[in-house]
Amino acid sequence: MIEIISIGDELLNGSTLNTNAKYLASQIFDMGYHVAHMTTLPDDDDILFAGIEKALSRSKIVITTGGLGPTLDDKTEEIVTKLLPDGLKKLDNTIGSASGLLFEDQGLIVLPGVPREMEAMWQSVQPYVKERLASEILTYHKKITLCHLPELSVDPTLRELKKTLPAIDFGIYPSYGTLIVRMSALKPDVLEKATDVITAKFSTQVMALCACKAEEALHTLLIEEKKTLSFAESCTGGSLASRITALADASTYFLGSVVSYSNSAKEQILGVSKQTLETHGAVSEEIAREMLEGVFEKFGSDYAISVTGIAGPSGGTKEKPVGTVWVALGKKGEKPHIGLVPKTKSAHKRETIIEITATFVLSSLWRLIKYGIPPFEEDHD
Amino acid sequence: MIEIISIGDELLNGSTLNTNAKYLASQIFDMGYHVAHMTTLPDDDDILFAGIEKALSRSKIVITTGGLGPTLDDKTEEIVTKLLPDGLKKLDNTIGSASGLLFEDQGLIVLPGVPREMEAMWQSVQPYVKERLASEILTYHKKITLCHLPELSVDPTLRELKKTLPAIDFGIYPSYGTLIVRMSALKPDVLEKATDVITAKFSTQVMALCACKAEEALHTLLIEEKKTLSFAESCTGGSLASRITALADASTYFLGSVVSYSNSAKEQILGVSKQTLETHGAVSEEIAREMLEGVFEKFGSDYAISVTGIAGPSGGTKEKPVGTVWVALGKKGEKPHIGLVPKTKSAHKRETIIEITATFVLSSLWRLIKYGIPPFEEDHD
Repeated sequence: MIEIISIGDELLNGSTLNTNAKYLASQIFDMGYHVAHMTTLPDDDDILFAGIEKALSRSKIVITTGGLGPTLDDKTEEIVTKLLPDGLKKLDNTIGSASGLLFEDQGLIVLPGVPREMEAMWQSVQPYVKERLASEILTYHKKITLCHLPELSVDPTLRELKKTLPAIDFGIYPSYGTLIVRMSALKPDVLEKATDVITAKFSTQVMALCACKAEEALHTLLIEEKKTLSFAESCTGGSLASRITALADASTYFLGSVVSYSNSAKEQILGVSKQTLETHGAVSEEIAREMLEGVFEKFGSDYAISVTGIAGPSGGTKEKPVGTVWVALGKKGEKPHIGLVPKTKSAHKRETIIEITATFVLSSLWRLIKYGIPPFEEDHD
Repeated sequence: MIEIISIGDELLNGSTLNTNAKYLASQIFDMGYHVAHMTTLPDDDDILFAGIEKALSRSKIVITTGGLGPTLDDKTEEIVTKLLPDGLKKLDNTIGSASGLLFEDQGLIVLPGVPREMEAMWQSVQPYVKERLASEILTYHKKITLCHLPELSVDPTLRELKKTLPAIDFGIYPSYGTLIVRMSALKPDVLEKATDVITAKFSTQVMALCACKAEEALHTLLIEEKKTLSFAESCTGGSLASRITALADASTYFLGSVVSYSNSAKEQILGVSKQTLETHGAVSEEIAREMLEGVFEKFGSDYAISVTGIAGPSGGTKEKPVGTVWVALGKKGEKPHIGLVPKTKSAHKRETIIEITATFVLSSLWRLIKYGIPPFEEDHD
């Protein structure tokens, strides 16, 4: 019923990542509607004309993004006013310069390509979208975020559920350590039943009853519990801090991070011993422990995490291959939990090793605080 | 000539960002070929069957990603083997479990949806793609990255160039402080001529003769010059460090960052004075200066950057609205360059303020080291 057309050579040649289509699709989905088509078209008069015409013939609402600026490769406005000469309404751009366009009778919404301008303008046309789609049947959704579970451990449960609740459409979206289960149905009550089954089955792995990142779960929990947090990061290189501080109000509990990328920084800022560095090397259980002690001492936070590892592609050895990442985490004054990050492999790319590590420690600390469950097997004794 | 089909409800409902299509498009573009269509299809038997059939009828090569796993919503393999019962060749998955598929005679390449698995498999089928497209005319490309220039300052130069070199197709891709000019033509020599004009016109703003991020330019320069770098970050929250350490071999020059998100961390780790905090507040020229002094003292690096600002959405005041960001940067032992980040507005989102700030300081330091040009006007005297 709704169609999204992303316009721009920069998308077809891979210069630009299409975040606009994801944003719009997610907004439309949450409103209960359905995106039936997503296409990407070049800055070419004839292809644009034909593509938008085709979309208008089959979809009640067509949203285009991009190609609205003042420069020579911006062609959308010219094309759509040729295609639909009447009924144009300008949409104000509260942030940038290029106005959007709305053709109310035909269901065509023309938005700019700059994400923040597009998002603000989309918010302003939502009432129009709801009115135009007033007669449509809404779909209800429920998402559950699970952590520390592989896709294959969740799939059998969903297959069983599908038998008893066939009205539900399921999806599983794993992402380096967390996993989102999406359930959709035409009535909300069956979704509640399925939610009960899943939360009962995976109780201490249910991070949130919505789509949620590991840092968001930890963020919410630390604000609730009024506890503080700090990090000492080596191979994650500021990624832990940056994921936490991307969230508004992180300053209520986050004290800071020491990104000790060099041995001298580990010694001089975190107080790691030179001898330990020489004996065990920077990537070791002992250094993870000393970094954690150092960060507790420097920041005095209630909880802390330290990370030291080899993200590659160089720097690996036979004994410590790329993907070897030691982490320590815990509560001030208590015995720390120290271990190797599971599932990082030497074949992984640098960014993947950083992402898996960050998601693992953030979700591990969340689970430790929330349920007292330690992240490593040997911790159980 | 090449068509990319991204498969998965998670794309149409906005759960997942389509990084695969960007990766493939960028690879294909750099090989000199052209992606004519990009579409996103749901996990639906009939729509998938019709969509892939249509694509094969019009494109010499069709690449699909996604829907290849073992779970109940993975339908691609079933559909394509129904559509093309013969000539299937399995493609090894060196990282994950789901094999890819290649139908050599029909030009259909079926790849998994997990990015790192898809990327490895794509590399292995590239020789096949080149062979199948051997008779195609190649397009040559050149990209130039410029910094500290608005799109409208570059556009007139490109319009002039288009008159003298009409064989070139131009594109401009601005991104929060840097800007990429893309030029494409069927012969490489005209691209060299245009490159000469642009580099002569914008000499000290040419960051690289390729698509390049601010941190990549700084990274390359610091390795060449054998100089070291460190940061003190408040509102960027580790984002500067994280962007630098995303690059392999950052450890050759990057010593670390103190993410001093709390006043106590600013005092205790960076040695910022309590009195300055009380008199001027954490977001001030004076604190940016003291943070820079502190980071030079702690890390002893050749160059350093400090950042303190209000990323919002809360925390702004009338005197210091959201988007007020003080930065200091410079060389050890020399007078620091201190000023407000231009172009951050209170209407910007938190992530945008962080991104604009990080790109501004990284490109400013690059320009200072490379050309001795200071980032702020008042620095000129």
